Amino acid sequence: MTETRPLSGVYCPALTPMNADLSLNTAAFIEHCRWLLDDGCHGLAVFGTTSEANSFSVDERMAALDALVEAGVAPAALLPGTGCCAITDTARLTAQAVALGCAGVLMLPPFYYKGVDEDGLFASFADCIERVGSDRLRIYLYHIPQVSGVGLPLALVERLVKAYPDTVVGLKDSSGDWSYTENLLKAIPGFGAFSGSEVFLLANLRAGGAGTISATTNVNARAIRALYDNWTGDTADDMQDGVTRRRELIQGFPMIPGLKHVIAAVRGDPGWRRTRPPLTPLDQAVGARLLDDLATGGFSFAGQPHPAATAATA
Amino acid sequence: MTETRPLSGVYCPALTPMNADLSLNTAAFIEHCRWLLDDGCHGLAVFGTTSEANSFSVDERMAALDALVEAGVAPAALLPGTGCCAITDTARLTAQAVALGCAGVLMLPPFYYKGVDEDGLFASFADCIERVGSDRLRIYLYHIPQVSGVGLPLALVERLVKAYPDTVVGLKDSSGDWSYTENLLKAIPGFGAFSGSEVFLLANLRAGGAGTISATTNVNARAIRALYDNWTGDTADDMQDGVTRRRELIQGFPMIPGLKHVIAAVRGDPGWRRTRPPLTPLDQAVGARLLDDLATGGFSFAGQPHPAATAATA
Repeated sequence: MTETRPLSGVYCPALTPMNADLSLNTAAFIEHCRWLLDDGCHGLAVFGTTSEANSFSVDERMAALDALVEAGVAPAALLPGTGCCAITDTARLTAQAVALGCAGVLMLPPFYYKGVDEDGLFASFADCIERVGSDRLRIYLYHIPQVSGVGLPLALVERLVKAYPDTVVGLKDSSGDWSYTENLLKAIPGFGAFSGSEVFLLANLRAGGAGTISATTNVNARAIRALYDNWTGDTADDMQDGVTRRRELIQGFPMIPGLKHVIAAVRGDPGWRRTRPPLTPLDQAVGARLLDDLATGGFSFAGQPHPAATAATA
Repeated sequence: MTETRPLSGVYCPALTPMNADLSLNTAAFIEHCRWLLDDGCHGLAVFGTTSEANSFSVDERMAALDALVEAGVAPAALLPGTGCCAITDTARLTAQAVALGCAGVLMLPPFYYKGVDEDGLFASFADCIERVGSDRLRIYLYHIPQVSGVGLPLALVERLVKAYPDTVVGLKDSSGDWSYTENLLKAIPGFGAFSGSEVFLLANLRAGGAGTISATTNVNARAIRALYDNWTGDTADDMQDGVTRRRELIQGFPMIPGLKHVIAAVRGDPGWRRTRPPLTPLDQAVGARLLDDLATGGFSFAGQPHPAATAATA
């Protein structure tokens, strides 16, 4: 597997700031993506769940990815989400990512029909691989059953890896069930397993996993990166504890609206609070409590190269 | 509500035949739609769950609807599904339906995020209504929580009807829980409530509902239409029993692959068996059992103006 060595590190499913008409605020999106890379992310899993990806049309997603690359963000740092309900949409987004030279794609299974059998899920991924037809394609499967409603059984992952060993090289486990990643890495040693939460980052790296792709890297990449860089060191467990406490604090609030509320406060830009329906912006009083809790928890943006860093410590 | 009197009758979520590359077989689709109208359907709820609508891209769906209207199918008989995960996609499909003069649209809520609050769901529908901005728009909400993962609470429906009384005029209840329709019609008398299964057709009509939009009308429209036409007659309960028995027989098999298998047999066209992943064509042995069960159950296409009617009785 040396030729297809999977990615590793800390990846961020970048939030998507919106204009008043709920179109993507492309300039603010690019600025946020650049800041995330400066703040410690190895790369960006743009158009994930946290990015409200499925709330954007395929054309909107393609235009945003083009804009990001045109703005100078290295495609080698990009792992866009491309899995849609329609195999034709998935293939189109995936082909664009390959053509742009992205490091890989993060792929949901088709998620409208529930309770579908393994053959149907296998055929969905196989169809995309055949349609795209590129030996440069690298797929990271996306297991988030509590949202998508369609989980990826281990037997399916093994079957895909066996059929497409150079293409299906990793998986993001957002199930919250650590035993899934643990069993995956036992079954497929060296597989590019990313934990969907940094809570499992140290356990994942110790089990031979690849890193994390986590929503909260949108506001806490630096500390998560420090843990990743020092995971074999004496302080690793303490660092994990600190990272976990911050994650748990944020998890007490609606994740996507909460993160957007924090960025809005840090940047002094209320427009950052916008979400696309069916998500709703965080209630202002709840948002104030989130910011209070973060401050009390010693969570600060101070020292980060952020345009509004001082606002965060106020 | 006379100006916005909802539709009523028997509507079919037409199956979508596919070419070998899984593109829509447009000619066969048009032929099937015409046959359904000849066979007793008042109209066609094209691009519903049974149509594998979400397995097609927005562009594919728009091209198919254009082709159907160009082929002479009356837009007044069409109630296309238009609800997507992205509000921009929903608005685009809905605007096309309005521009073509369709009778209405059947609208899923955005279905990627689960557990979203009522405000977010309300905003999703309101966003589409505002974006489309037409007083000709008629929305039938689509409640199918076991598939979409996102149900429509009665309070939400009432709120939408109050805000948009001339636009939100009906709902398809595919939950399988009759009490949902019952409570809906008590709360909003005269609402255009369609049962998602003909099993509830008589109960629905007696409660003041509008009719049915049912998968099995793809193969049993004539009997269902006869029940609709005679629901106040002495034989209505017997007719309902017969229709229910057929439905229950088919429900013992995977619905969409099963219906496609039946049509393939009736038309003598194996290509009709194709589905898009994640659905898979019915296993041939299972399909043979389905056809046997239908024959044993007295289910026959004989007498229907179908190109391959004789095959069904063989």
